[in-house]
Amino acid sequence: MTSNLVSARNLRFLLHEWLDAAELTRRERYADHAPEDFDALLELSEQLASEHFAPHYRASDEQEPQFDGTDVHVLPAIGEALRRYAEADLFALGAPAEHGGLQVPSTVATAASMWFSAANIGTLCYAFLTQANASLLMTHAAPKLVERFVPPMLEGRWFGTMALSEPQAGSSLGDVTTRAVPQSDGTYRIFGNKMWVSAGDHDLSDNIVHLVLAKLPDAPAGTKGISLFVVPKFLVADDGSLGERNDVTIAGINHKLGSRGTVNTAPVFGDGTFTPGGEPGAIGHLVGEPGRGLNYMFHMMNAARLGVGAAATGTASAAYLKSLDYARQRPQGRPLGVPATEPQVPIIEHTDVRRMLLAQKAYVEGALALVLYCARLLDDEVSLADEAARAEAATLLGVLTPIVKSWPSQWGQESTSLAIQVLGGAGYTRDYDVEQHWRDQRLNPIHEGTHGIQALDLLGRKVLADGGAGLMLLAGRIEATIARAREVGGRATVHADALKARLDRVGEVTLGLVGLGTPEKMTANATTYLEAAGHLVVAWLWLEQEVVAGAQEGDFYDGKRQAAEFFFVSELPRIDPMLDLLAAGDLTSLEMRDAWF
Amino acid sequence: MTSNLVSARNLRFLLHEWLDAAELTRRERYADHAPEDFDALLELSEQLASEHFAPHYRASDEQEPQFDGTDVHVLPAIGEALRRYAEADLFALGAPAEHGGLQVPSTVATAASMWFSAANIGTLCYAFLTQANASLLMTHAAPKLVERFVPPMLEGRWFGTMALSEPQAGSSLGDVTTRAVPQSDGTYRIFGNKMWVSAGDHDLSDNIVHLVLAKLPDAPAGTKGISLFVVPKFLVADDGSLGERNDVTIAGINHKLGSRGTVNTAPVFGDGTFTPGGEPGAIGHLVGEPGRGLNYMFHMMNAARLGVGAAATGTASAAYLKSLDYARQRPQGRPLGVPATEPQVPIIEHTDVRRMLLAQKAYVEGALALVLYCARLLDDEVSLADEAARAEAATLLGVLTPIVKSWPSQWGQESTSLAIQVLGGAGYTRDYDVEQHWRDQRLNPIHEGTHGIQALDLLGRKVLADGGAGLMLLAGRIEATIARAREVGGRATVHADALKARLDRVGEVTLGLVGLGTPEKMTANATTYLEAAGHLVVAWLWLEQEVVAGAQEGDFYDGKRQAAEFFFVSELPRIDPMLDLLAAGDLTSLEMRDAWF
Repeated sequence: MTSNLVSARNLRFLLHEWLDAAELTRRERYADHAPEDFDALLELSEQLASEHFAPHYRASDEQEPQFDGTDVHVLPAIGEALRRYAEADLFALGAPAEHGGLQVPSTVATAASMWFSAANIGTLCYAFLTQANASLLMTHAAPKLVERFVPPMLEGRWFGTMALSEPQAGSSLGDVTTRAVPQSDGTYRIFGNKMWVSAGDHDLSDNIVHLVLAKLPDAPAGTKGISLFVVPKFLVADDGSLGERNDVTIAGINHKLGSRGTVNTAPVFGDGTFTPGGEPGAIGHLVGEPGRGLNYMFHMMNAARLGVGAAATGTASAAYLKSLDYARQRPQGRPLGVPATEPQVPIIEHTDVRRMLLAQKAYVEGALALVLYCARLLDDEVSLADEAARAEAATLLGVLTPIVKSWPSQWGQESTSLAIQVLGGAGYTRDYDVEQHWRDQRLNPIHEGTHGIQALDLLGRKVLADGGAGLMLLAGRIEATIARAREVGGRATVHADALKARLDRVGEVTLGLVGLGTPEKMTANATTYLEAAGHLVVAWLWLEQEVVAGAQEGDFYDGKRQAAEFFFVSELPRIDPMLDLLAAGDLTSLEMRDAWF
Repeated sequence: MTSNLVSARNLRFLLHEWLDAAELTRRERYADHAPEDFDALLELSEQLASEHFAPHYRASDEQEPQFDGTDVHVLPAIGEALRRYAEADLFALGAPAEHGGLQVPSTVATAASMWFSAANIGTLCYAFLTQANASLLMTHAAPKLVERFVPPMLEGRWFGTMALSEPQAGSSLGDVTTRAVPQSDGTYRIFGNKMWVSAGDHDLSDNIVHLVLAKLPDAPAGTKGISLFVVPKFLVADDGSLGERNDVTIAGINHKLGSRGTVNTAPVFGDGTFTPGGEPGAIGHLVGEPGRGLNYMFHMMNAARLGVGAAATGTASAAYLKSLDYARQRPQGRPLGVPATEPQVPIIEHTDVRRMLLAQKAYVEGALALVLYCARLLDDEVSLADEAARAEAATLLGVLTPIVKSWPSQWGQESTSLAIQVLGGAGYTRDYDVEQHWRDQRLNPIHEGTHGIQALDLLGRKVLADGGAGLMLLAGRIEATIARAREVGGRATVHADALKARLDRVGEVTLGLVGLGTPEKMTANATTYLEAAGHLVVAWLWLEQEVVAGAQEGDFYDGKRQAAEFFFVSELPRIDPMLDLLAAGDLTSLEMRDAWF
């Protein structure tokens, strides 16, 4: 079994010693589980990921999906891995029991997913999209639609997609032009071109279930005119059997920098290539109410964006541990002052190599804490007994979502780049995986809302909502950690003071930005705000880990304390100049003109 | 002619308005040139790069060099481009007139090279290595060797390599084990395996001239035992005609993340595949004196490392201008508050997109100023009339070399990543070049001495040399710029004050580090020191540009002032927390232990 994908010890630390996963089993929603089940799931995931996802990681990059003009062919090992994943019932891992799911807490399911994202994110993506699709339908679709489309997805027989973007409407979804024409039988005929649709066609599953944003006739302009439709590749009879081919084809596939195992397509709906029921037009079913398509999509956006953060973390984790492994084995050079007659030492003996590894540890384990904390909020949102506590979890998750999406994406990139640097020339070759992880990673600040869109979401929406309720909740939790850290003493107290000073400044700066008066000025440095807030939050979660480590003895806890020290000494202070810039209400980018470039 | 590779206007600004290239023509060494010649060279370079280097940029990535077990086959378009380059006499551009070179100042040759590095760095690399090889021979080899090997390289008929690293000796060159056995005829037989040798075999030139580090029998351990040899692929008769094949083969080629047009090989010397003169062993010729091989290599290291900085800058320049072009043409979304019924606007209208473009402008034009400033020091070193002034240039160049190598490599990567981000999903596809530039760029912090090695060179060697003479010289030049900026007034004065504060702190921090007593402690954060010094130096060069722009009117000068403002507001303050860490003598990475990871 490979051990260089995720630190199993760290997963147990976060799940049990920090987040107290056992407590979840005492909640009604998760009462069917025992804490030992969670450990068994992690072990099963490690095994499946190591044996069936990791081995074709390089092959899925070298032999990327092929489009022959009609069909898409994907590396068979991807399908085989997903069959194993389905056999272990992992498609249904987080789904509610009422729909046949295992109803495992998100905290635990996300921890387990680390193994798969680290082993082969391109393969996992098919499952992730299917789970997200099924989750949306279970929440918003009529029972009849759920019955027809969800069980095959939870069994991993059919895969799902999200068909949102169009060639002229990427980040600007209000501009989609795909049309949905009502039919006399209650269905709709869908016509239009989509873009950037992952898993939009392939030969891995019996059917493909597209969730498609489209506009009804006379829908208003902008996002309020958007409805959501289920459009299967093959029509489905009432008994669940597959019927004729729907009028869904693809215009082509995108050839990507990384994450190549996941085919990315440009689907075409209703161009008449097929004529289901004797006429052109892709047959679709309305999900929920007309005009609420984007709301439904955003309802699941928290989970989807958390998923990107988790993917980024898994990718960085694999690169980190592979570079650690290399640094322990590769002899090169000697410590300063040791003569050339002495044997060379493993490069981990060089301080700068340890710096690069320690930085990776601080990024990866900080990101993982953030991801699991947010997954825990997803659980809290649906399983806490107290309604106010559930609402609090939802509000807090809203504020943290742009951060959990963006921070692991940004620093996971830096982390993966350091992994390449540890390997040196070898890291620049395709003989090692780190360059592939680095290419895979680059997708994360782009999809599911770009980095800049996360920034606008945080500062322009989440921070303003309910008079800043989310930010105040977050500040309250950070303050609580600071108080506990001060009881630990030593470096934890020093770190608590450092965090407190920044927390107060973020509060002041936020008020200052809100007071600038115009949305343009307020959001002129939204990305800087997002990045400063992200580092603040991860510093907080490092302090949490340091508090849990306390004075416990052993290499693992020493490592936690050293990584916390690194984050507080080398990382948190980065936000000071960012906060200065925000405090000054800098307008340099706002005032830059096209002609001046 | 493509215009999205380099800003011709900015090149003219830097060469004429800032560095006063015309003054160079008044020096004896460059008296044969007129300033108009320089402009003609820039125009010729733009044309050649656009017409012959840029068109196969994507093809040279997709159709990477192939090794058939005996020979290496490279995309023919690369050979064709280099023939055009040779026809324009550009292989001989910077070489001394006494050897048939054009003796163009490095400042101008480097400016011209921007077009080629931006168009296709993988193709340019063959020429760059050949020029470096010839330059070393002209400086250190006996006249007979120079006569035999240099003219064909300056004519672009033979290409050169640098065969330094070995499988067990990458950064640690003292550990090379390749052997050189003296022969009765004064030649040597070379035996050993090399690694990471760019252009180590190909079908682009009539011969390949390897410069090989090897050890004579009984050579001492470490770097002092290393000698340098010329080893041609085909033996060369006294009349310059090619003879039999030398015993040089390759074990294989490396498959890289980027920069794929440049074949990277693992050459084998003397394994008996060929038997020149009837016996195995690659026939080589000693360059200069025994035991001084690494000195000769390091003698040309300033130029080679400047070359990496120039390559990184050209790569970032192309990505920047391509993303600028995209941002001006791609409609998506609307300004805040504009209803969805209005047409979409080009994405350059969004502040965050302008921020990403402005950051790229600040990085690219800052890096280019640094590169050209260092190239000017190369010229000063050989062409100033006053000996003390020449020595001063050499000392200053020594301090700046690790910075000109590392800063464009590091921030060129960030810049190129921003180019991808501007394009969004499109930037993640191979339909656009920005992802290729990003992959190409990743090589630069690795080759010609890794980022960490530059840091040790700066702090452990250059700063300490001659009691800090280099750093004091640098500080003096920065102080002079600060004084001139204060006369300009307005923002330039504010920036001057900001720079002065950091300059003083760097001085204090440097003294503190030297006072730490042990090399381990002093260099524990050498990389942080390198990065802080780099940002300080580039801020200085932005202030230089701001002073030249002065109060001149027009979009170009407005852009210069705005980019300077960006650098001083968003970039320079980044170094404050770095300086704090250095001032504290942080030992977190030094004290991290293997077992704690």
